[in-house]
Amino acid sequence: MEPHGELGEATPAARGDLAEVLRESFRAVREATEALCTPLAVDDYQVQSMPEASPTKWHLGHTSWFFETLVLAPAIAGYRPYHPRFAFLFNSYYQSLGPRIDRPSRFVLTRPTVEQVYAYRHAIDARMAELLRGSRDEALAALAPTIVLGLNHEQQHQELILTDLLHAFWRNPLRPAYRPPPQLDRPSRPLTFVPFADQLRSIGFAGPGFSYDNERPRHRELVPAFELASRPSTNGEFLQFLDGGGYRRPELWLSDGWDAVQRGGWQAPLYWERQDGRWWQMSLGGMQPVDEREPVSQLSYYEADAFARWAGARLPSEAEWETAAGTQEVDGNFVESGALRPVACGADEEGLEQMFGDVWEWTGSAYLPYPRFRPEAGPASEYNGKFMSGQMVLRGGSCASPRRHLRASYRNYFSPGSRWQFSGVRLAREPG
Amino acid sequence: MEPHGELGEATPAARGDLAEVLRESFRAVREATEALCTPLAVDDYQVQSMPEASPTKWHLGHTSWFFETLVLAPAIAGYRPYHPRFAFLFNSYYQSLGPRIDRPSRFVLTRPTVEQVYAYRHAIDARMAELLRGSRDEALAALAPTIVLGLNHEQQHQELILTDLLHAFWRNPLRPAYRPPPQLDRPSRPLTFVPFADQLRSIGFAGPGFSYDNERPRHRELVPAFELASRPSTNGEFLQFLDGGGYRRPELWLSDGWDAVQRGGWQAPLYWERQDGRWWQMSLGGMQPVDEREPVSQLSYYEADAFARWAGARLPSEAEWETAAGTQEVDGNFVESGALRPVACGADEEGLEQMFGDVWEWTGSAYLPYPRFRPEAGPASEYNGKFMSGQMVLRGGSCASPRRHLRASYRNYFSPGSRWQFSGVRLAREPG
Amino acid sequence: MEPHGELGEATPAARGDLAEVLRESFRAVREATEALCTPLAVDDYQVQSMPEASPTKWHLGHTSWFFETLVLAPAIAGYRPYHPRFAFLFNSYYQSLGPRIDRPSRFVLTRPTVEQVYAYRHAIDARMAELLRGSRDEALAALAPTIVLGLNHEQQHQELILTDLLHAFWRNPLRPAYRPPPQLDRPSRPLTFVPFADQLRSIGFAGPGFSYDNERPRHRELVPAFELASRPSTNGEFLQFLDGGGYRRPELWLSDGWDAVQRGGWQAPLYWERQDGRWWQMSLGGMQPVDEREPVSQLSYYEADAFARWAGARLPSEAEWETAAGTQEVDGNFVESGALRPVACGADEEGLEQMFGDVWEWTGSAYLPYPRFRPEAGPASEYNGKFMSGQMVLRGGSCASPRRHLRASYRNYFSPGSRWQFSGVRLAREPG
Amino acid sequence: MEPHGELGEATPAARGDLAEVLRESFRAVREATEALCTPLAVDDYQVQSMPEASPTKWHLGHTSWFFETLVLAPAIAGYRPYHPRFAFLFNSYYQSLGPRIDRPSRFVLTRPTVEQVYAYRHAIDARMAELLRGSRDEALAALAPTIVLGLNHEQQHQELILTDLLHAFWRNPLRPAYRPPPQLDRPSRPLTFVPFADQLRSIGFAGPGFSYDNERPRHRELVPAFELASRPSTNGEFLQFLDGGGYRRPELWLSDGWDAVQRGGWQAPLYWERQDGRWWQMSLGGMQPVDEREPVSQLSYYEADAFARWAGARLPSEAEWETAAGTQEVDGNFVESGALRPVACGADEEGLEQMFGDVWEWTGSAYLPYPRFRPEAGPASEYNGKFMSGQMVLRGGSCASPRRHLRASYRNYFSPGSRWQFSGVRLAREPG
Repeated sequence: MEPHGELGEATPAARGDLAEVLRESFRAVREATEALCTPLAVDDYQVQSMPEASPTKWHLGHTSWFFETLVLAPAIAGYRPYHPRFAFLFNSYYQSLGPRIDRPSRFVLTRPTVEQVYAYRHAIDARMAELLRGSRDEALAALAPTIVLGLNHEQQHQELILTDLLHAFWRNPLRPAYRPPPQLDRPSRPLTFVPFADQLRSIGFAGPGFSYDNERPRHRELVPAFELASRPSTNGEFLQFLDGGGYRRPELWLSDGWDAVQRGGWQAPLYWERQDGRWWQMSLGGMQPVDEREPVSQLSYYEADAFARWAGARLPSEAEWETAAGTQEVDGNFVESGALRPVACGADEEGLEQMFGDVWEWTGSAYLPYPRFRPEAGPASEYNGKFMSGQMVLRGGSCASPRRHLRASYRNYFSPGSRWQFSGVRLAREPG
Repeated sequence: MEPHGELGEATPAARGDLAEVLRESFRAVREATEALCTPLAVDDYQVQSMPEASPTKWHLGHTSWFFETLVLAPAIAGYRPYHPRFAFLFNSYYQSLGPRIDRPSRFVLTRPTVEQVYAYRHAIDARMAELLRGSRDEALAALAPTIVLGLNHEQQHQELILTDLLHAFWRNPLRPAYRPPPQLDRPSRPLTFVPFADQLRSIGFAGPGFSYDNERPRHRELVPAFELASRPSTNGEFLQFLDGGGYRRPELWLSDGWDAVQRGGWQAPLYWERQDGRWWQMSLGGMQPVDEREPVSQLSYYEADAFARWAGARLPSEAEWETAAGTQEVDGNFVESGALRPVACGADEEGLEQMFGDVWEWTGSAYLPYPRFRPEAGPASEYNGKFMSGQMVLRGGSCASPRRHLRASYRNYFSPGSRWQFSGVRLAREPG
Repeated sequence: MEPHGELGEATPAARGDLAEVLRESFRAVREATEALCTPLAVDDYQVQSMPEASPTKWHLGHTSWFFETLVLAPAIAGYRPYHPRFAFLFNSYYQSLGPRIDRPSRFVLTRPTVEQVYAYRHAIDARMAELLRGSRDEALAALAPTIVLGLNHEQQHQELILTDLLHAFWRNPLRPAYRPPPQLDRPSRPLTFVPFADQLRSIGFAGPGFSYDNERPRHRELVPAFELASRPSTNGEFLQFLDGGGYRRPELWLSDGWDAVQRGGWQAPLYWERQDGRWWQMSLGGMQPVDEREPVSQLSYYEADAFARWAGARLPSEAEWETAAGTQEVDGNFVESGALRPVACGADEEGLEQMFGDVWEWTGSAYLPYPRFRPEAGPASEYNGKFMSGQMVLRGGSCASPRRHLRASYRNYFSPGSRWQFSGVRLAREPG
Repeated sequence: MEPHGELGEATPAARGDLAEVLRESFRAVREATEALCTPLAVDDYQVQSMPEASPTKWHLGHTSWFFETLVLAPAIAGYRPYHPRFAFLFNSYYQSLGPRIDRPSRFVLTRPTVEQVYAYRHAIDARMAELLRGSRDEALAALAPTIVLGLNHEQQHQELILTDLLHAFWRNPLRPAYRPPPQLDRPSRPLTFVPFADQLRSIGFAGPGFSYDNERPRHRELVPAFELASRPSTNGEFLQFLDGGGYRRPELWLSDGWDAVQRGGWQAPLYWERQDGRWWQMSLGGMQPVDEREPVSQLSYYEADAFARWAGARLPSEAEWETAAGTQEVDGNFVESGALRPVACGADEEGLEQMFGDVWEWTGSAYLPYPRFRPEAGPASEYNGKFMSGQMVLRGGSCASPRRHLRASYRNYFSPGSRWQFSGVRLAREPG
């Protein structure tokens, strides 16, 4: 797949013409979303394979509704919604923006059709273009933060489109492929542990550029000395856990995790399947043999935690991860979305590899507000803060993440039993 | 009752030429199915709005699988299935025909696409045509019963396509219309009770022609004197029940029915909705004002039973219904797919109206085998017999039934809490 | 256990002194209930091992509430209830008698204590005695039907006390015994089939004496020729079904039954357990080896039906069973409750054995009203009629039934998946 | 790790004689448990009013099993268990100690009876006394940590006996009282905020004496300046939240909390009930009018969090709470079981009141391991560590906590939706 969303222009490099930057960023992100849908049949847009997932059609509508509701409607006097019921259909969870269809019922929306949803998207695109064209500088400056939030929001849905589709294709007995499997032939380097000394460290977004409210405010934390694995754990390493009876040994598991193993009959990562004496894995390229050199993925927090305990290690905390990541560059920026199988993030002088863009890495930190956290004002206040309960933080970013969407302070979060993301594990431990 | 499924007699054209009759019947039924799909967008084929319903796409595939598996495969030496996994996808519930996808998971089948399912249909059509063309008379005579079963089976799915779609469209907040609402302006005649005397009566299919195994064997029953309503109860009459607190008076309900009312929050028939002080009803023509002259529909058995108790009457037994229906003509034949709003079945000299083709009428009889019932041989043994538990019989046929699919001995059945069919009520009572 | 409830006096034999008969019947039945509780610890009275079962304490309170509410309160002007909240606690399902505790929550009633419930019972006993003593003949005659209904009601709860306790003891890992196991050494006679010719037969209660409303009105039915097994099927015969893979062959089962097998993991009758290579069975005498000569018990309708199909037979209809039973005497009367392991019902000249008092025998008839059925007037209208949905009829009576509670027209009923009663199977078939 | 369980200092009386101290502590805690049961009827011991609660009988057995399994069996060569199945019945969740009855099924244990469970307790008491009497000093020193753990464990169950009983009595429509209501007439002091400056602070148990593994290791944390409420929030203050529509305003709630409100129909704290225009509250003294001066209790984390947001404040973190509590004395010791309504903890010079012994105070901290946490060795490793997922920390202690069980470093934890504990809220906020 081609790079989608080349938006370096939105960074400080390209000042002077804010309208042009916004216009170009908007175009690039919106196009990138549609590019992801190229391989789909109309049928594929409709499926919701579990309550937590959404149909692609809905993702397309929802991301457009976001711009319509948070940008266009406030900015344009007397704004007339594109369709009187679309707010009901495409609002995700914003209580302040009115009632909405039950999340598990998004699949019933055979109407609007895919064609109509694209028409909606394009109408919003046109209205946005007009708004950007017709607004004066001060007005644009006032709109820019919400537009940029909307673009980052859409990038998050780009990843979800892929992970939700993969789940649906996995449930389909035909196991269709979203795209041809990549020709990977990456050697896996030996795992080493990189030491970090005691430090009093600033954690959280340090700007400039975009960040979510949950990455702020930057604040100081004591980070005692620790060691972090040089790379994510691989399928090969996870196979040892599995072959060593990892899924049958309660002493390795959190109590809730063991319950999940029992109740769900877990015996391997979500997309693994044993056939004819070997392990296969459902992927965007269809069923493929498990590659022992690739990072293990589609793990729940419980599995990541049990694996770490089995390995005599533990999960890193958020602060540890960010401390380590701070030493590694990601040439990121809110708008450039990456390849689906990213180029490897080059090993830096610290010896850490693959921090961004292979798998989200579960941390041992609960998703809670930073000290003195304040949610965004307005409807965006519901974006992050109200979900700060019952979830664990993941750091880094996956092969399905738009590449320039990522940064060291980024806090992703899922409930500890969630397994359908590209989520893996990087080990941490105490110094010798 | 006149014979109406006599395949020799079924099409005016053709006596003596069984192949021609089968070919023509096959073509007509298969085309009727596809004709029902004309108003659909690709998106619509995919939806499964509850576990009991199926996507249209699945209905299309399943009815083709039926012919492939029960007719083509046994008839053609070395038959190669169209697709190695389609048996898994499109087998409904035939244990003897191998494993199959969980019923509530039929919605995950975004692949095969609608286009691919039509290709499958047409390939089966072609193979069937070839088989009919190439078979000698004795061979055809041996195939004919299963082919005719397959056509009747497909007609049943024609009705389900409509009722399942209507349910999905009802759940969609946009309430789309499947087709323009009919321009009905039928007066509703006064309800009278037609008396029937004690009789020792033969019940069950009397041939010739097609019937399901559950309509046989014809046997004698004592039918004490009773009276049957001249027509189904209307929306207007049901409104009186509703306005009289029918849904709030436990003494009118069976215990299971009252539980269903409480648990489901039932306050009216399934598709009724109160807006601006009047009742509306979701229909194939979208939301329409409730027409007080039309038969009440989308009732569960529990509601039909409670309504009858409120009215000082009861539901008829199967035997009573069939006794009464035996006096009324239906110009049916198994192959003509009827109008969705059928022409009224003419009142006959007995005074009974609308026995066929308005609403299925709940009887007070459990769906159980007739004395000395024997299921069909072979895989078709699973067609009816194994469902003889936990369901109640409905008689007559609805506006969504292919018109010539119906007959007086026909036994439809649903669980007593089912409400998404065109199911209504005709009252019975003891003679003065 | 001693016979409890010797009430031959309530029959026509003992006329002349209705008050005395009622008093004596009342005393005998009420004592019989308490006698059943002799082996219990206070702890045992409290348990509700599934929503369908009730604590013994609740049975004791409920049967007293029945007399208080249906007899004492209407009969005594200005009657003051024993306790203002007991109606809420001990009403089972009578909508017309006010709100009540949720059925599955009966276990929360640690208060009133067992001691207080006995005090309640004895207070009601005293008030009833006083009422019977103080009423004149016409008043007594008016009260008698409800009192007799209450006594029959209490006898039904006597059986439930035992079956509910057995379920609770079965769930207890210690598997306690309610009483010492009986020393049975009954030979099992060979199973033969007894033929019955075509007949037009009267079905339903023929009086005199007590009957439930659901046994009436007596009416005529056509009963085609059939054959009925001479005795219930035995554990030994059921073992052959089981060893022949009966629980793994879907073609033997109703669809709902097969679902129950899969969902519930059924592999044998409810209380069977395999230990050290042989089958054991939980019983009122604790865990005992399965006795191959005894009737198989704790079967659901689904299992009885599948077993019959496996045996090349079927379940009898209600009418068939009653036709056959009409030829066999049970020296019954509404008040004498039998031994828990009854003496064998002697084989009569017809060749039928064990029709009453071993196991309830599932019939193939749904529990529906007889033609022209009318429920009792008043609150007792809720006794039977509202449950005529979703259940199958059992006939005969079990080892836990009070022996004189039984009669040929008696209709017991349970949902087809219920397995915790002493319910078994007697085969029927068509004449050679 | 420092020695913990410094029993030499634990009781004032007895230095130098470890056996005597252990014996006396053991006696006191065990007696305190039984004293709590004095008001119970045998019936009350049996009830399990929800899966999360346990019958009193089970608590009595389980706490005895703990000593038998963790102390007696390892200490005594060839130890013979009191009963071969009690390990199955009374093991709570220790995977390493073998299989056990499902937690939600503890209620089925009508056997062993209450009497038998007391016999078990007393037999264990006797064996423990013998062990303590017969062991030499080194042996005793080795046993002491586990014995002390067992006593603290039993104190935790003392609190659960009360909270579980209260839940059961609340579900009982009679709303029985466990004991007479206390005659409280405490004025409520005005709420002020006590400021704390930035500090680098040691958190965790500092010894000497007993602590759980989850309170260790003591470690340093940065605690930025904050303010803490001088006392818990009261019923009166919570009423303002409630009257201000607190339960109907989604913007005040975490997303999971709002779901809980909707799904559970929450409108007030768990035990509140509106009658005749005023609020009543179920308590150990039965239904009582809500006292506006008392701390609000039976709150979930979600309610505490929403209330704090409504109040323009937030919940304190663990570290903040412990920082503040460090300045307040609790005259604690592991063995004295406290009054159920404790004497007020005297206000100290810092202005904080009621930190210990009124209500557990929800913190905003997830229950996670402290840096470098190591679980206890052996079976006790399952005591705390495996539950470090999906729960929030509470601090302080409630009126149902044995008073000397508490300390500033104590970490209690429950899932955020749990409401049946004496759990309330103390507000925190940023410095002006």
